[in-house]
Amino acid sequence: MQNIEGKEEKMKNETYVHIVNKMKFKNPILVEGLPGIGLVGKIAAKHLAKELKAKRIAEIYSPHFPHQVIMKKDGTIRMLRNVVYGYKKGKVEILILIGDVQAVTSDAQFEVTNKMLDYFESLNVKEIITLGGYGKGTTVDKIKILGSVTHKELIKKYEKKGVIFGEAKGTIIGAAGMLLGIGKLRKFNGICLMGETHGAFVDYNSSKELLKVLCDILEVKINLDNIDKQKAKHEKLVKEELNKLSEIDKSEGFGSLSYIR
Amino acid sequence: MQNIEGKEEKMKNETYVHIVNKMKFKNPILVEGLPGIGLVGKIAAKHLAKELKAKRIAEIYSPHFPHQVIMKKDGTIRMLRNVVYGYKKGKVEILILIGDVQAVTSDAQFEVTNKMLDYFESLNVKEIITLGGYGKGTTVDKIKILGSVTHKELIKKYEKKGVIFGEAKGTIIGAAGMLLGIGKLRKFNGICLMGETHGAFVDYNSSKELLKVLCDILEVKINLDNIDKQKAKHEKLVKEELNKLSEIDKSEGFGSLSYIR
Amino acid sequence: MQNIEGKEEKMKNETYVHIVNKMKFKNPILVEGLPGIGLVGKIAAKHLAKELKAKRIAEIYSPHFPHQVIMKKDGTIRMLRNVVYGYKKGKVEILILIGDVQAVTSDAQFEVTNKMLDYFESLNVKEIITLGGYGKGTTVDKIKILGSVTHKELIKKYEKKGVIFGEAKGTIIGAAGMLLGIGKLRKFNGICLMGETHGAFVDYNSSKELLKVLCDILEVKINLDNIDKQKAKHEKLVKEELNKLSEIDKSEGFGSLSYIR
Amino acid sequence: MQNIEGKEEKMKNETYVHIVNKMKFKNPILVEGLPGIGLVGKIAAKHLAKELKAKRIAEIYSPHFPHQVIMKKDGTIRMLRNVVYGYKKGKVEILILIGDVQAVTSDAQFEVTNKMLDYFESLNVKEIITLGGYGKGTTVDKIKILGSVTHKELIKKYEKKGVIFGEAKGTIIGAAGMLLGIGKLRKFNGICLMGETHGAFVDYNSSKELLKVLCDILEVKINLDNIDKQKAKHEKLVKEELNKLSEIDKSEGFGSLSYIR
Repeated sequence: MQNIEGKEEKMKNETYVHIVNKMKFKNPILVEGLPGIGLVGKIAAKHLAKELKAKRIAEIYSPHFPHQVIMKKDGTIRMLRNVVYGYKKGKVEILILIGDVQAVTSDAQFEVTNKMLDYFESLNVKEIITLGGYGKGTTVDKIKILGSVTHKELIKKYEKKGVIFGEAKGTIIGAAGMLLGIGKLRKFNGICLMGETHGAFVDYNSSKELLKVLCDILEVKINLDNIDKQKAKHEKLVKEELNKLSEIDKSEGFGSLSYIR
Repeated sequence: MQNIEGKEEKMKNETYVHIVNKMKFKNPILVEGLPGIGLVGKIAAKHLAKELKAKRIAEIYSPHFPHQVIMKKDGTIRMLRNVVYGYKKGKVEILILIGDVQAVTSDAQFEVTNKMLDYFESLNVKEIITLGGYGKGTTVDKIKILGSVTHKELIKKYEKKGVIFGEAKGTIIGAAGMLLGIGKLRKFNGICLMGETHGAFVDYNSSKELLKVLCDILEVKINLDNIDKQKAKHEKLVKEELNKLSEIDKSEGFGSLSYIR
Repeated sequence: MQNIEGKEEKMKNETYVHIVNKMKFKNPILVEGLPGIGLVGKIAAKHLAKELKAKRIAEIYSPHFPHQVIMKKDGTIRMLRNVVYGYKKGKVEILILIGDVQAVTSDAQFEVTNKMLDYFESLNVKEIITLGGYGKGTTVDKIKILGSVTHKELIKKYEKKGVIFGEAKGTIIGAAGMLLGIGKLRKFNGICLMGETHGAFVDYNSSKELLKVLCDILEVKINLDNIDKQKAKHEKLVKEELNKLSEIDKSEGFGSLSYIR
Repeated sequence: MQNIEGKEEKMKNETYVHIVNKMKFKNPILVEGLPGIGLVGKIAAKHLAKELKAKRIAEIYSPHFPHQVIMKKDGTIRMLRNVVYGYKKGKVEILILIGDVQAVTSDAQFEVTNKMLDYFESLNVKEIITLGGYGKGTTVDKIKILGSVTHKELIKKYEKKGVIFGEAKGTIIGAAGMLLGIGKLRKFNGICLMGETHGAFVDYNSSKELLKVLCDILEVKINLDNIDKQKAKHEKLVKEELNKLSEIDKSEGFGSLSYIR
């Protein structure tokens, strides 16, 4: 495989950034959207990459991802992985990190994060925006976008874009936190943007609100209609499943008074 | 122990391929049949090695296999391990990988797989066939052999042998997946052949159907009668156990109304 | 980051002592108060550092601490970590080790402890005092301070300060034990000072008694009033929470005879 | 600490054999008795070391042993560890390995075992006798000593001493198995001697029978009276505990018909 120094290299027993396309950047912003609460970050980042027609530039494999391969519809298999997309247009330079999974243990998160940061450093990344959901445990009427930054002096800049500070409490778990936490120690700066969400459901609405703020920050314009279409599709699927379950309930008498266990 | 470079080497704290017999190959096909769903792959691969009278060429030990030794009937002990058998006759060259166990964690699977691929590379393997069961959760009348390949262009070749593509969904867990997934990144190509099976039982029938297709692919002919004998033996054993349990049930009154706990 | 040899160093995938302020010591005593039983040690050590106005000299990061970042009230994030404070006044030289977390597994505790001891060695530490709670499983009227030392000849010295020996039984788990256990093998000497405590509650009283003995040993005088204020604050908080729960109980009828589940 | 090459060495983050006393051997037999089923092996090996007045020659520390220190009655702490004792008298040379704990995971068992074997190799050990209990799940009238060897040709020699072969089934878990399993791959030979035991209780009787056979093999004579004294002491303790529990039962009505939960 092609490593980040451009050399052919054997798969080793560690996290590996495999370069698919070489693309040079001067000062790109990294946007991370790996799977997390309500899939808010993942949906947003994936949509962004798609709408920008960003180019796949690297694949990340790790012994800390589950030891499974995915069977695709076309009859082929592929490893679980993370993927980095690159986008350049004029002064706007964006990297987007999405993927199937995150590492689960602390050791593994550290290794994966450090390997990724090595790669992002080689692409001259200085600013990192991680995306996530902020679980409220309840449905939210007006979704706010909360933020937490690596350095205090960044707050003003993001507040102007509508990001709310000081409201998010607790900890940020996983890549969205580690990229900023370890990143800060390695001289990166950045923000975690969190769309408020229930937490127990996939939330396209929160992703959409998040994307609005994100696009404003990145100074790009994208069509958000597709996110509504995906939402409609997802909701139809969920309803069908629920109907199936309710049919089963009726036939088996679950939940009815006549059913005694 | 004899390592893959032919040198004496001390046991280290990592997965180790111990060469038992040196045997050279030009372009062998690797068949993997480690323990998995319904033991479909293991039974098939073991039967193949036995019928071909293949030669034991390597033993694989790993700190990631359980820390137990097996007490054999002859009064000796042996480590848990994987074993590689080699077979050559004219143009037909086959390696068969079977064993007691698989590593359980992702890290461990990566290490074991990479060590094995190093060894298989040294034997000029380019094509890998992994065997497994495809759990249907229900009994199957007509057992189909499903496939998933590393590269799209391989599909045609295997379809001609009766392998069905595009039907298997989800992921392949463990060695059968990893050898292909990591293998693909390391320039191997291959297929996972899956015999449909219930999933909750040892399934000799599925193994037999799998073997028919496999032998056709490998261009070898073997006697399959022994697999039926093993099946009969296994079924007798299971019935005896069930009878014992039912005797206990009767005497202790389990499940009867007279039994009150 | 600044490593213990004073060089800039990249974050690696291991426990890392990041030097924040260089401060030289001739023969400092290390006081450890990481989170443990009843938070007895943590409260005492934190109070000591605060009252002495000790200076933050190092931060310890580790892949064995949870992969989370804390969102602070000021809108910024920070990694979970341990922190070392330094204090010098005349002949009195004290290092204080406190933090958010401890490593959970044995391997991790060994790595973290050894890295810390490397650092403490470089600061000429020879004596280590670890603080903890000694769980009695019941409320204690007169809190005794129990001790267990690395070397028998140290007992007399500490007995004079009111520490009771031979009464504590069982094992000391985590940093308070490891720093002394591994420390002993690495030629450090020291004591674990344990304040008797119930074990199931945060115990400011035990911390206070512990601090009295500790300050006598360290030959420093500090104001202990703040610990009482913190205690009052903590108790108020707990009471409010309990009241809320009891309100819920009343409204939902928990625990009353009319409530049937 | 003093390492196995006789050099001073810092504690590293791996299993460490710390030499306490240098003692030379020509061809010693290693006897292992770490904690296992019914403590049969541990009691026997400990008794042997005591009666032979064997000399403590090495201590083994490991990051894979629990991260705890033991508080001793004399007011000092010590790390959990394994200990090697040495005994020499004429042609009889014996090493005895006992300890507080075993490593729990497979990786850890491999590391610890390999480190120990490095040490035993340096002392010219060729033969290993591991001790254990063989759980029968029921009380045994006449305790048999079962064996399983590394090499078939050893069976005769041990059969003459009353060891029974071919009867023990299943696997040997932990050090008693690993020292022989990995040992065999590293050119050691040996036997696991198992005293039949219930499995759920500490079994001094089985240890005593085991010791009789072991002493015959080792060609030493020791007094076994102390094992009976220990047994009596242990039984007294267990009875007292049971009486206490039965007092509680009476007062609280456990187990009586009048008690309704």
